[in-house]
Amino acid sequence: MNVASLIQKKRDGGELSQGELHFLVSGYVNATIPDYQMSAFLMACYFRGMSDAETVTLTRIMLESGTRIDLADIPGVKVDKHSTGGVGDKVSLILGPIVASCGVPVPMISGRGLGHTGGTLDKLETIPGFRTDLSVEEFKSVLRQTGIVMSGQTAELAPADRKMYALRDVTATIECIPLIAGSIMSKKLAEGTDALVLDVKTGRGAFMKAYADAVTLTRTLVDIGLSFGKETVGFITAMDQPLGTAVGNWLEVVECVECLTGKRGTGDGSSDLMELVHVLSASMLMLGGKAHSISEGIAQSRSAVASGRAYRSFHEMVHTQGGDVRVFDRANPGARCALEVSADVAGYVYEIDGLAVGLASLQLGAGRKRMEDSVDPNAGIVLAKKVGDAVRAGETLARLFTERSEELESVRAAVSRAFVIRAVAPPKRPLIHALVDRTGLHAWPL
Amino acid sequence: MNVASLIQKKRDGGELSQGELHFLVSGYVNATIPDYQMSAFLMACYFRGMSDAETVTLTRIMLESGTRIDLADIPGVKVDKHSTGGVGDKVSLILGPIVASCGVPVPMISGRGLGHTGGTLDKLETIPGFRTDLSVEEFKSVLRQTGIVMSGQTAELAPADRKMYALRDVTATIECIPLIAGSIMSKKLAEGTDALVLDVKTGRGAFMKAYADAVTLTRTLVDIGLSFGKETVGFITAMDQPLGTAVGNWLEVVECVECLTGKRGTGDGSSDLMELVHVLSASMLMLGGKAHSISEGIAQSRSAVASGRAYRSFHEMVHTQGGDVRVFDRANPGARCALEVSADVAGYVYEIDGLAVGLASLQLGAGRKRMEDSVDPNAGIVLAKKVGDAVRAGETLARLFTERSEELESVRAAVSRAFVIRAVAPPKRPLIHALVDRTGLHAWPL
Repeated sequence: MNVASLIQKKRDGGELSQGELHFLVSGYVNATIPDYQMSAFLMACYFRGMSDAETVTLTRIMLESGTRIDLADIPGVKVDKHSTGGVGDKVSLILGPIVASCGVPVPMISGRGLGHTGGTLDKLETIPGFRTDLSVEEFKSVLRQTGIVMSGQTAELAPADRKMYALRDVTATIECIPLIAGSIMSKKLAEGTDALVLDVKTGRGAFMKAYADAVTLTRTLVDIGLSFGKETVGFITAMDQPLGTAVGNWLEVVECVECLTGKRGTGDGSSDLMELVHVLSASMLMLGGKAHSISEGIAQSRSAVASGRAYRSFHEMVHTQGGDVRVFDRANPGARCALEVSADVAGYVYEIDGLAVGLASLQLGAGRKRMEDSVDPNAGIVLAKKVGDAVRAGETLARLFTERSEELESVRAAVSRAFVIRAVAPPKRPLIHALVDRTGLHAWPL
Repeated sequence: MNVASLIQKKRDGGELSQGELHFLVSGYVNATIPDYQMSAFLMACYFRGMSDAETVTLTRIMLESGTRIDLADIPGVKVDKHSTGGVGDKVSLILGPIVASCGVPVPMISGRGLGHTGGTLDKLETIPGFRTDLSVEEFKSVLRQTGIVMSGQTAELAPADRKMYALRDVTATIECIPLIAGSIMSKKLAEGTDALVLDVKTGRGAFMKAYADAVTLTRTLVDIGLSFGKETVGFITAMDQPLGTAVGNWLEVVECVECLTGKRGTGDGSSDLMELVHVLSASMLMLGGKAHSISEGIAQSRSAVASGRAYRSFHEMVHTQGGDVRVFDRANPGARCALEVSADVAGYVYEIDGLAVGLASLQLGAGRKRMEDSVDPNAGIVLAKKVGDAVRAGETLARLFTERSEELESVRAAVSRAFVIRAVAPPKRPLIHALVDRTGLHAWPL
């Protein structure tokens, strides 16, 4: 087979056979096909897309490039959740313990934050001693012992995806739905879960800004999962304003602890976060065979929080993965608030630009501009007001936490601009737009 | 500047500034930007094209990456011709000596054949001793002495183009009009010519199969030339059947000698070749200030052949570049005809598939499948019939010359299929479609 002619075939809108795609991707992973041919192929994929069959084949090749964790000897239907990433998206840390405490094992391979979005691993690593570099054996052992495990992608899981992703990152070929879908699903299939709930974010603070793209990605992800025999459902959810109140790693852990202990999450700035947590938890409980309906699942999820079971499960996971749970006794910001951003005018918070808040948090030190950057665990932003809240002139909109005093003025201005205040209250906007399952796309609520 | 964001800008349909393009292409040439980013950029260019300004900038960067030959100390307006390549296209070998013998210096940097088309250098190298690897000083010295020089691209001329072309060749990014135009013009501008006539081929045997693409390429080439202050005109000409009768290196030299000595070219299979030669020569003579109209130029061109001046000029160039001119005394095929292809039925030759004849000649050993392949100087095909000729059943259509007897049967079948014979004569088809000059596109004849 001639590599240039395969690139040309894709360039001209053709569909590659399984054998052709195998030759190309395996050749790239084995370094018999050079970077410069793969990057031209990836750019052709950006413009031409991939067929469903090509996407599944690509996923399979990346999956089979590494170890596939076998969780068959752990009882129960294992269910994981994956989010495409948002600002203040701390759902996993609350939902995982809830679902595990309801009897459904949750094997979760998580990622780091990149760009304006946070990552679960960065949040967990603010807990002293918490290990996110578990071996496959340790991963299984924690899951067996506590019903939940959260760790990072090891070198053995989908190494082809890791190599392809690094190339895409420097060749402007990230934003391609089949490639995104193959990357996500190869890792999720490798972790050995039996079923999967996807949270595909759309809106200003998401990677998929356009709703139509989010729908296409969700359908693609669900189709891949199903074609590998894994029950998969995908929610399309709003990522316009940040989710909950905290943006920044330790600040988000604090919010999670407060939500898990029932101190927050009802009638306050964390309500949207907990609404989403309960729906996604309910869906996982259905997939895990513990609930017959979403409403039954939501009731179980709420009860897991109210009873303290979910928080105990969280404690147990942190302890088992080496984390010092005493840190939760204080559970308050690790640094003093450096600056308060206050409202210029009175009115209602009409919009909060999640992308701007995410970028501002990055500037304060909470995230990475490049993969190799380190993160300040205590940096970030806590919103004092959310969309729909009434506000008086001079009232605090947000609190900034950082060691970087030189950034404060420009971040203050950016956060101030991110809040749109009007004389009228905004219309209520949906948090969950739709659900995709094996029968297709359904408006939410069902 | 961030390379990935420049790739993304092109990917999203943006126009790169001069500075951005400079950063990218110069960085690639200096190897600070890797192949894999350039190939992704080139594929994005394939899909998004380049603006006129970008194309001119790209040409300038490639031109300025190397030496620019200065011919200012050679008197007269120097004029070159470039063809985008066809089957049996031996125009340069006849036209160059004609134009030089009429007093217009012709500095010609030529290329090798690739794919189904022949290359001037391969033809010249069938002449024992003929050197195509002249240094810049030798190039100028031959031009000064004889008024004409034909040599290959040296390493100093447009090295950026050479590096980009090699990458495009293996990443399916050859077929992109601005990149093709930049590649051609950077070399032509580097050779130091004052004016340029372009012969852009279109049709079955050409690289630009579609007429509209040929028009776009011609306009782009002419615009680049003009923006560098070089008077440039482009002809769009037919490349359906092979030009003239011979296809293959030494066989084509023989046809050229016969045309230059007046033995062929009128009322025979070489008529189309000489019709094109005289028009392109006339255009060069106008650009060189020796003719006031195409008809006056054609008359000068015919007279140069009839008087023997053109052939003497050819002799002189060959001799000065080290070639043994005694080889022209025989000027017949260097090998015995291996096989004759004859007509199955009587009628008129309605079409000859130039691409098929070019590929058949390649199979006989006359061309390269890869850049590093060697060429059999004597291999090729001589057409005994051309489009419009009447033919009897069993009459010879073409003669095959090769050392590769194992290829003969499949080539015979292919050449036989290349000839379409019908009961009716074909309509007369134009050889020259149109002319592009600084005032735009003009149907031909004017």
